[in-house]
Amino acid sequence: MAHISLPEGIPGILGPMAFSPQTAKPLNELADILLRGPNSLAPAERELISTNVSSQNDCYFCQHAHGAVAAYRLGGDERLIAVKANFQSAPITDKLKALLAIAGSVQQGGKQVTSEQIERARSEGATDKEIHDTVLIAAAFCMYNRYVDGLATWAPTDPEIYRENGKRLADHGYVVSTAKLVGA
Amino acid sequence: MAHISLPEGIPGILGPMAFSPQTAKPLNELADILLRGPNSLAPAERELISTNVSSQNDCYFCQHAHGAVAAYRLGGDERLIAVKANFQSAPITDKLKALLAIAGSVQQGGKQVTSEQIERARSEGATDKEIHDTVLIAAAFCMYNRYVDGLATWAPTDPEIYRENGKRLADHGYVVSTAKLVGA
Repeated sequence: MAHISLPEGIPGILGPMAFSPQTAKPLNELADILLRGPNSLAPAERELISTNVSSQNDCYFCQHAHGAVAAYRLGGDERLIAVKANFQSAPITDKLKALLAIAGSVQQGGKQVTSEQIERARSEGATDKEIHDTVLIAAAFCMYNRYVDGLATWAPTDPEIYRENGKRLADHGYVVSTAKLVGA
Repeated sequence: MAHISLPEGIPGILGPMAFSPQTAKPLNELADILLRGPNSLAPAERELISTNVSSQNDCYFCQHAHGAVAAYRLGGDERLIAVKANFQSAPITDKLKALLAIAGSVQQGGKQVTSEQIERARSEGATDKEIHDTVLIAAAFCMYNRYVDGLATWAPTDPEIYRENGKRLADHGYVVSTAKLVGA
């Protein structure tokens, strides 16, 4: 049971977002800009970063919600599973591996990011914007994950729910999908 | 030196916000709602929560920036210093102590919040909104702190800079102050 009184049967972050539409607005706008806005990193790559950070934070709802967006965008879950198991050996670009390493350090704490990690990302072609967005995506998911689990929200276990939701989020985005589901 | 190329001489989070005005907008809107919006928790109490989480995350810029807002609102830094040293013995309400304990657990990870912490907060009169906002303030500062330190931004050490900035933030808010300083 959640730590505060939330509408029944609304999964994960959507419960607190229905409870607090004022804060849901900037939270969803941030997600749309970071994960779907114009960027040389593909939305699928950004969702792999958000999923991996959520997995490191052991947030069941977020890693399955964003994993489903990544899998839908990638046309399958092969790369998603490989990244979550060990991104260094996953079939992804060396640039994305370098950015996932930076995101992994941010998950531990901002000061854990090293100059060597930044240099490696640059040598693989990462731009300032890609590094900036990677740091902020990882930092933002340290917030979303704590919001979801800090209130002990309910997470469905049926993969089909996440698949449907992943398609909706990929097709319509975070602001629009949340408004449709909970009016926030 | 920051990990990416940021405008010179702009302290802490304002550097990345000038670099990325699109993301600065929802980040500042979230701060204004959480720290200054209508709430039975006083803005000074909410700034004590944000400062203490930033201190736990060892983020120099954020703990001094938000500490200065708290001190300005409280008319001095006595309670701020006491909270940062050990909030359980600080001259604050028992409700705020219970909420600071919840925030401290969120800083460690969402799942660290216990039912006992929630019950204690309720027994001291905390409402669902106060508990929700405490969890989201703590979660949000786990993001802001990682954004600031994950990019290795510059932080001034002159207390007068934080004092002036604290007064400006308390009087005008996060969206307006940031727009004045960096146009974001």
